[in-house]
Order: sequence, then structure tokens, then C-alpha cells
Amino acid sequence: LTETAVDPRKYGIMIEVQGERLLADLRALAEFGKEGTGVNRLSFTPEDLAARDWLIERMQAAGLVAEIDGVGNVYGRSPAQSRAVLIGSHTDTVPSGGWLDGAMGVMYGLEIARASIEAGADAAVGVDVISFADEESTFCGTLGSRSFVGEVGETEIATAHNLEGLALTDALARAGYADRPHARLDRDRHVAYLEAHIEQGPRLEAAATRIGMVTSIVGIRRMEVIFRGQSDHAGTTPMAMRKDAGAALIRYAGAVLDGFDAVGGPDSVWNFGHVIFEPGAGNVVPREARILIEYRDTTMAIMDRMEAVIRGAATAAHAAGAVSVEARPMMAIAPADMDPALGRLMDGAAAELKASAMYMPSGAGHDAQHLANHVPTAMMFIPSIGGRSHDTAENTEEADIVLGLRVLAATVTKIGNQVRS
Amino acid sequence: LTETAVDPRKYGIMIEVQGERLLADLRALAEFGKEGTGVNRLSFTPEDLAARDWLIERMQAAGLVAEIDGVGNVYGRSPAQSRAVLIGSHTDTVPSGGWLDGAMGVMYGLEIARASIEAGADAAVGVDVISFADEESTFCGTLGSRSFVGEVGETEIATAHNLEGLALTDALARAGYADRPHARLDRDRHVAYLEAHIEQGPRLEAAATRIGMVTSIVGIRRMEVIFRGQSDHAGTTPMAMRKDAGAALIRYAGAVLDGFDAVGGPDSVWNFGHVIFEPGAGNVVPREARILIEYRDTTMAIMDRMEAVIRGAATAAHAAGAVSVEARPMMAIAPADMDPALGRLMDGAAAELKASAMYMPSGAGHDAQHLANHVPTAMMFIPSIGGRSHDTAENTEEADIVLGLRVLAATVTKIGNQVRS
Repeated sequence: LTETAVDPRKYGIMIEVQGERLLADLRALAEFGKEGTGVNRLSFTPEDLAARDWLIERMQAAGLVAEIDGVGNVYGRSPAQSRAVLIGSHTDTVPSGGWLDGAMGVMYGLEIARASIEAGADAAVGVDVISFADEESTFCGTLGSRSFVGEVGETEIATAHNLEGLALTDALARAGYADRPHARLDRDRHVAYLEAHIEQGPRLEAAATRIGMVTSIVGIRRMEVIFRGQSDHAGTTPMAMRKDAGAALIRYAGAVLDGFDAVGGPDSVWNFGHVIFEPGAGNVVPREARILIEYRDTTMAIMDRMEAVIRGAATAAHAAGAVSVEARPMMAIAPADMDPALGRLMDGAAAELKASAMYMPSGAGHDAQHLANHVPTAMMFIPSIGGRSHDTAENTEEADIVLGLRVLAATVTKIGNQVRS
Repeated sequence: LTETAVDPRKYGIMIEVQGERLLADLRALAEFGKEGTGVNRLSFTPEDLAARDWLIERMQAAGLVAEIDGVGNVYGRSPAQSRAVLIGSHTDTVPSGGWLDGAMGVMYGLEIARASIEAGADAAVGVDVISFADEESTFCGTLGSRSFVGEVGETEIATAHNLEGLALTDALARAGYADRPHARLDRDRHVAYLEAHIEQGPRLEAAATRIGMVTSIVGIRRMEVIFRGQSDHAGTTPMAMRKDAGAALIRYAGAVLDGFDAVGGPDSVWNFGHVIFEPGAGNVVPREARILIEYRDTTMAIMDRMEAVIRGAATAAHAAGAVSVEARPMMAIAPADMDPALGRLMDGAAAELKASAMYMPSGAGHDAQHLANHVPTAMMFIPSIGGRSHDTAENTEEADIVLGLRVLAATVTKIGNQVRS
């Protein structure tokens, strides 16, 4: 795809999306697992399976050829074209999650595909829609999108369990999906993957901007750093004779904060989300202390510098004293750049619709990061009220939801016109 | 009591204690609630009540007039004298505790009283023995010793519960103690209170010294410092927009460690025994974080300086940013000085028995700290192997146990001779 200014009406395939129809679909989907203003629809629960069945019916009613694949991906293809823009996200949620999250990106796809079919079969590029299974890691994080690009092994599927101990293979068998083929990305067919999502953060709202073109999805690494000392009576043991894992952790964590301040880039974020001291009594010197350090950036170079801070401080703390220190990697996901040309098409679509827009990184992971290595991929954000997400309070103004739909539809038109031209 | 050099044999009332008899009693007592090499004998459990009944019998067999009072104190008086040295400690334990802990101090008292009675009725000063109830805070910390000096109110007894929700009043009623009178310290009778205890720390062992004369029992204060921020997505929320309770706690705790290093005295100890971050997930900015800070010293002035560090750093952290900080006192026990003249008598007794000895503070709390404001009080420590206590692995060499008994008996002789002279 090259970047050229294209009049979306030039070829007469303007996609006339209907905001009210989208909102009605979104509200209907939110009934599956409804919890107050939010949704509780964990992967492969009865609510999730019912939502997938409902989605298949909606796809078919829109004129798509739709099926659920062997990992639970709900996939609808436009029947009249041999090339298509793929639009999607996921319909599973975290526990007590929001009604938009991944659902909105899938419903955008459904409405744009439906409007595209309604516009007539003369479009050179159709619209395919997908709801990827288990994005939220109930069993196996971003299972559906990784399966779709061939990055899930049989062993991973065979060994995954949810927190209640249910095996993924049993969940897929109960759902009736287990023996079905696995849908795959088709490089001959799919010209682009587009995913719209609520921002899940406060940047757009703070900037009073309605559309975000995602430049990169951040990489994420997690390290657990473990301090092993010795339990002692906190009254009778002189300070100089202690092997205090807790105090060692406090000193260490302060040094890492200093180091991150020094080496982090403008988009770097980090979090000490979990700390535990064992045995955890006021009058017992901590025998063991553990801290979970998560950090994200859009570039590997900065992430490597941050990891060097973590490891360097651990080596220094270990060398310093009586407490042993171990830094243990827990997760490493590489950053994924979005396609710059697609981003500029989206930016142009926003400009034509007079929607304020800005380029920004995604600080959260998405299915798009797995597609990005295999097909030109773009993500669009719309504002989250108060930056809230993964919570029943998650919401977005209806006007923003509908504007996002129109910008994404216009982007599809631009892509179609480029393919045709 | 004045300090003068007194030949313990001058008045012919040398108390001939028998180490093997002491050890046999200690081993017999350790059968009540035995757990491997240790003891599980929480206050007012069947094991604890059976041990109290056994102790009454042993006291009576030794010739003492013995009874259990209204809070469970087992109190035996020497019948032939109107004045007495009181010797005791406690026989209840922590969960999975050691076999010596408080039991040893009570059994020292029993053996010294028995040997004193055997030596004949010509001693001017008898030996009374007491096992104070619930020193280990199963219901109500140091209940027995505080009751004995009139420092427990009816409300405290009426409202105390154990961790299983059993009311102290119900436990006392079931034991048959509830309607009995409360034994009290008798200033006309009791010339001194002596408590022997394992050190529960590593100092004597590290110094290869067998007897510790306690100078003071440290005061203990606990503060919980609470940081209240806001949960946010740890990927999508820019660092500058966070209200990160966890990072605020890390910075704060580092500042308190620096401050304690600066203002602490040679005997000061401190401990950050418990830290919690809420909600405690790697990808969620901590909404709330709490740290429990315990510190001890033998002087109020140093404890006040340490408290000023805690409060000053909290005020600074609160003023600095978006996270609110509250420092909440949880416990405040004043330091208690032991009687210097009694300490010197004990030091002299150790010297006569050629036992290596040193003066040292007690970093742990003991019943003696409540007696100290009401009667001349001394504590003696003997070594703990590896400094271990409150654990089934707690132990002391038999030779050290017997040497401690002999030093304490010689101290009683010196006190008796002073009273007579």
C-alpha cells in the first residue's frame, strides 16, 4: 500500500455506515453476561459461547459467509470479493469488564461489512470480520489472533488451563469447536487488518482529541525480583546481624525507580504492581520479599536499557550483602509497529470527517500486535471516559463511538480505492 | 535493696538447686501440647489448662500454697515466710512454639522454691512462684502480669477474643476460673521479681557469653503508613498522570530507612515486616499501599526521634504529590528499666559461679516490664542456640540451662542475705 491522496467518492464505493445500527448491535451484545453497566463474559463460558452464536447469526444476516473455527474465532468473509480488508478485535472480557473493550472493534467490522455489502458488489475489496478468541488470557492470551497467524503450537493449546483448572482442550470440546479447522490469515486475500478499540487510557480525553492513530503497540516485559534472607525476631536481633529481605527490596526498588527515570523514553511506562514480604508479621524480619516489575516501551532499545537497570541493580544488591537477589523474567512481548501508510490513510479519513486526531502509542496489548508481522495493520483509538477500562464503569460518548465508526469506514474506502487504483 | 558484697554462705541459707530435677520438670511440662521438638500450648486450650493443673500439683508437692486465680495465673506462695522473692514467667506458648520460652522461667522458680523449702525454714525471705496467664497475646497480651499489678481493666477482659472468636470471658468460665479472686502483687511481701528467659536472639551466643543481665526491656511502637492513590492501567496511563501508591511507598520507605540510620541509637532496632499493594496485579497501578513499621529502643527520647522520622517523611510524601499519606499508630509500649542494684547482685552471683556474663537490653517484651514499675525487677537471659525462638527449633544447651538456674538461685540467696542483714 502506498500513501496517496484518494477521494473516497472517486470510485463510487463510499460505505454508508449507520451509527444507530452499530449502537443497537453493541447494546444487544452487551446483554450476554451483562453485569450492571458492564459485562462478565470470560472465554468459553456459556455467556461467551452464546455471544459467539449470536455473532454468527448477525454476520450471516449481513451477508457474510461465517463460521466459528477450531479455537473459537468467529470469522465472517465477504462472498463477492477475492480481496478484503479484515476488521476485528475480540468479544471476550475480563471478569467484570466493560461493554466496549474488544466488542466495539468487532461491531465496527460487522457494520462496515454490512454497509459495504449494501453498497453493492462493485467494490474491488470486500470487508471480512473476525472476533478473535480469548484475547483476555482466560486460558491462553491472544489465542485467536496468534492461531490466525500460525503462532500457537499444539503444546500450548494442550496445556492451557483457566484459573478454575479447566483445560482449554476440554472447553473447546464442550463448545463443539475442537475438531474444526483453524482459520488462517490469507495473504492473497487480506490487504490490511484494522482494529478499533477504546483507548483504555486518559490521553485522548486529556488532549480533547477524538481519534488516535496508533503508531506502535508497546512491548511488555515483566521481571520478578526475589530477595532471600532469614526470618529473625525483629526485637532481639541486632540490625547488623540481620538478613533482611524486606529492607533489601525497599533499597533495590528505589534504585530501580532512579534508573528508570534516567533511561526511560517519553513513552516508557513502568509499574511495581505486586510486592510481598514473607512471613509478613510486624515483629518478624522478612525472610523473603518479592517485587513484580512490569515495563513497556515502543522500542526494543529502550526496553533493553530498562532491563539493564533491573539486572544491574539486582547484581549490585546481591553483591552488597547477606540477602541473595534473583531477577527472573516472567514475560517478554516485543513492541509491534503499525503500518505507517495505513496510519496516514486513517489520519486523512479523520481530517476529511473533521475529526480531531493524533498519533499515539498503544500502552496496552491487542490482537493487532500479532497480525502486524504478517499483514499491514492499523489500530484506531477512540476516547475512554476517565481513562477507565477493564471495569464495569468503562464507557465512551455515543458520538465518539459513531465518529470512530465513520473514520474507520472512510479508511476502508481509502484502502479499497488504493487497491483498485 | 542496696548493693553490697555478701557471702551467700554467710547465713547458712545456700539454696542447693538440682539441675536434673529442673530438667525433668521442664521435660514433663513440654509433654503438654508437644509438637515435635516444640510445644503448641495456646492460652486456655485443653493443653494449657492441663499444664496449669500439673503445675499446681508440682507447686504443692514442693511445699508451696498454690492456686489458680481469676485470670488463670498459677501462683504458689512459700508458707513459712512473710517476705518473698517472686520468680516467674509464663507457660503458654505461641502456635508451634519452643519448649523453653516462658516455661523455663517458671520452672526455675519452682526448683528454687523447692530447694529453698528443703534448705529449711530459717531463711528470712521465701520464694514465691508464678506462671502469668496469656503472655503470648492469644486473647490479651501479658494479661496475667498486668492483672497482677492492677493494670487490666474490666472492659479489656470483657472484650478480648482469640483469633477464632472465642471470648476471654467464655474461656475463663469454661476453665472454671471466672469467679475466682485476682492474685495481686503484695508490696509488703514481695521484695523483688526475677524472671529468667532464653535470650530469643543471637547476642550471647555470638559473644560466647552464658549469662545476660537485662538492663532494660525495650519499648515498642508500631505505625501503619497508608498511601492512597488511584488504580490505573499500567500500560495506557502516562507516568505523569498516575497516582501511584506503590511507588510513593517505595520512596517513603527508603527515606525512613535513611532517617532511622541517622537518629537510631546503638540498641535501636526497626522492621518493615508487612507491605501490601492493592489490588496487587502486575498491570494495574497500585491504588493503595500499606507498610507496617515497628521500632524499639530502651529510651523514650530515641523512640520519639524515630517517630518524628516516620511522621516527617509521611508529611513530606503527602505534600509532594497526588498520593495521600496517613501514619496511624498501632501500638505503643514504653521501655522498662530493670533495677540496677538487682542487676549487680546477679552479676556478682555469675562471677562467683565463674559464669561469663554481660549486660544487655531485652529486645523482646516480657511480663517483667509490667512488674518493673511496681517492685524491684531483674531479668536474666541464657543463650538461645542460633538465636531461635517462637519456633519448635528453639533450644538451649542443658549446661546453660542448669548454669542459669544456679546463677538465679545464688541471686536469690544474695537478696535474702541483704534483707536479713
